[in-house]
Amino acid sequence: MNIGVIGLGLIGGSLALAAKKQITACELFGEDQNSDHQKEALDLGLIDHTLGSSNYANMDVIILAIPVDAAIQIALPLLDQMNDNALLIDVGSTKSLICNALELHPKRNQFLATHPIAGTEFSGPSSAFATLYKGKAQILCETHKTRPDLFEWAVQWFKNMEMVIQEMDPKEHDQHIAYVSHLSHISSFMLGKTVMEKEKDEKAIFAMAGSGFASTVRLAKSSPAMWTPIFKQNQENILEVLGEYIANLQEFKMLMEQEDYEAIYQKMQETNAIKTILAGIN
Amino acid sequence: MNIGVIGLGLIGGSLALAAKKQITACELFGEDQNSDHQKEALDLGLIDHTLGSSNYANMDVIILAIPVDAAIQIALPLLDQMNDNALLIDVGSTKSLICNALELHPKRNQFLATHPIAGTEFSGPSSAFATLYKGKAQILCETHKTRPDLFEWAVQWFKNMEMVIQEMDPKEHDQHIAYVSHLSHISSFMLGKTVMEKEKDEKAIFAMAGSGFASTVRLAKSSPAMWTPIFKQNQENILEVLGEYIANLQEFKMLMEQEDYEAIYQKMQETNAIKTILAGIN
Repeated sequence: MNIGVIGLGLIGGSLALAAKKQITACELFGEDQNSDHQKEALDLGLIDHTLGSSNYANMDVIILAIPVDAAIQIALPLLDQMNDNALLIDVGSTKSLICNALELHPKRNQFLATHPIAGTEFSGPSSAFATLYKGKAQILCETHKTRPDLFEWAVQWFKNMEMVIQEMDPKEHDQHIAYVSHLSHISSFMLGKTVMEKEKDEKAIFAMAGSGFASTVRLAKSSPAMWTPIFKQNQENILEVLGEYIANLQEFKMLMEQEDYEAIYQKMQETNAIKTILAGIN
Repeated sequence: MNIGVIGLGLIGGSLALAAKKQITACELFGEDQNSDHQKEALDLGLIDHTLGSSNYANMDVIILAIPVDAAIQIALPLLDQMNDNALLIDVGSTKSLICNALELHPKRNQFLATHPIAGTEFSGPSSAFATLYKGKAQILCETHKTRPDLFEWAVQWFKNMEMVIQEMDPKEHDQHIAYVSHLSHISSFMLGKTVMEKEKDEKAIFAMAGSGFASTVRLAKSSPAMWTPIFKQNQENILEVLGEYIANLQEFKMLMEQEDYEAIYQKMQETNAIKTILAGIN
C-alpha cells in the first residue's frame, strides 16, 4: 500500500518510520514545504518517494502532520483529490476547527481526526524516531463518522505502535488540552522569557539550571511556527485557563507578601496530590 | 575520619553515600528528626552509626542537610560543640541568612557555605544515590572565610565527586537562584494547582500529561516542608521575580486577547534562544 505524509517533521517523520517498520509492503511518499527538510527526509530514509498533487490519488492513506492553520487550509482540497477508498488522518493539537471544517465534505467518512500525545522539544526530520508513539496516548475524535473499514485499519496500526487509544469529543479535547498541554507551553515560554530578561549573566543560568529550571523551561525550546497557530485556534479555552493560572500566581504572591507561610505550605501540600495522578507516567 | 550528616533525605543521604564511596577509611554518622528515616538510613547503609549531641565533638566533618529554617537554628550551637579542627558544611538553597548568622561566630573559619545544584522531585533516605552530584554545579560562598586546610579538603572531595565548582557572593546567589530555581518551583506548583482545580476528570489529565504537562509539573511533587522555609528566607528576591513572571503572562494574555499572533510568535522565537544557553545541560 501507498502511504503519504504531508509534513516531515518530528510527528510526521516518526509516523513514517513507524509505518515502514510495522506495515508490510508499504511505500512511503512524503512532502514538506521546506525543500531542505524534504531532501533530508529522503536521505534519512523516512520516505521512499516525494509526494505531490500529481500522486495524491494514488495514496491509500495520507497523514497530515503540518501546523494546524495550514492543515485546515489544505484538508478540504486534499480530500477532494483522494481516491474513494483512501483514508485521511490529521494529527493536530486542536480538533474542533478541523472537525467542523470537514463536517459537510462528501468524503467526511474517509477522514479520521487524531491527536497522538507524543513529542519532544526538537523538530525537523532528523528529530524523528520510530518508537516516538510507543506507550503514548492516541486521542480519536468523532470516530463514528469514519467509515468502519478505514477506521479499523487505523486502529490496528495504532495498536501495533502500542498506543493507548482514547475517544473524546473535539470540544472536550480542546478544553482539556488547553489545561494539560497548551498552558504548560505558555508557562514554560514565559518562564524562559522572565529569566532571560533578568539574567544577563548566562553563566549563572547555566550553572544553576539543574535546580529545576532546565526541566520547567524545556518546552520553551518548542517551535513558534507550530505553536502560534495552536494558540490562535484554541484562543477561547486558553484565555480561560491562562486567567486562572495568573490568578493562582497572584494569590501565591499575595500570601508571600502577607507572610502567610502556613497557607503556602497548605497549597503546596494539596498540589502534591499530582504525584498520585501522574503515577505511572514517565 | 568521622563524617556526620544531619538530615538523611535525598541531599544528605546522597552525600553520605558519595563520602562512603570516595573517602577512604571514613565512618558515617547520621541523624534525622524523623526516627523512621533515621532507621531506614541505617538499614540502607547510608550511615554506619547514629549521630547526636554526645558525639558531635568526635566528628571531623558535619554536613547540615535539613530545611533552611532548621539549619539556621542549629548551626550556631552545633559549631560551638564541634572540635577545633572540624569542618561544618551547609548545603541549603539560600545562602545570605546562614552566612550572616555565622559571620561573627568564633569558629566562622570552620564553616563552608555550599549549594550543590542537584536534586530530584523525590525525598527521604530511599531516594538517595551516590552519583546524584556527578557533573553537577557546586556553588561555594565566602570561601576566603574558611580555613584554607579545611577548604582544600572540601574542594578535593567535591572534585572527586566530579562536581563543577563555582564561587558566588551569598546575596548574588540568592538573587540568581530566585530566578533560576525558586520561580520554576512556584510556576510548577501553581500549574499543578490550576489543572487539578479545573480538571476533575483525572483520566483526561493522565491521558494527556505526555503533552508537556508531566515535565513542567514535575517540581510540584517537591516537599512543602523543604520549600516553605526557602520561600520565606528568600522572600524579597522571589517577590520581585514572581512579579515579573506574572507581568509577562499578563502581556501574553493581552496579546492573545488582541489576537496579535505576530507578536506572540516573536516572543516565543526570542525565548527559543534558551536552547543555546542550556545546550549541554541534560
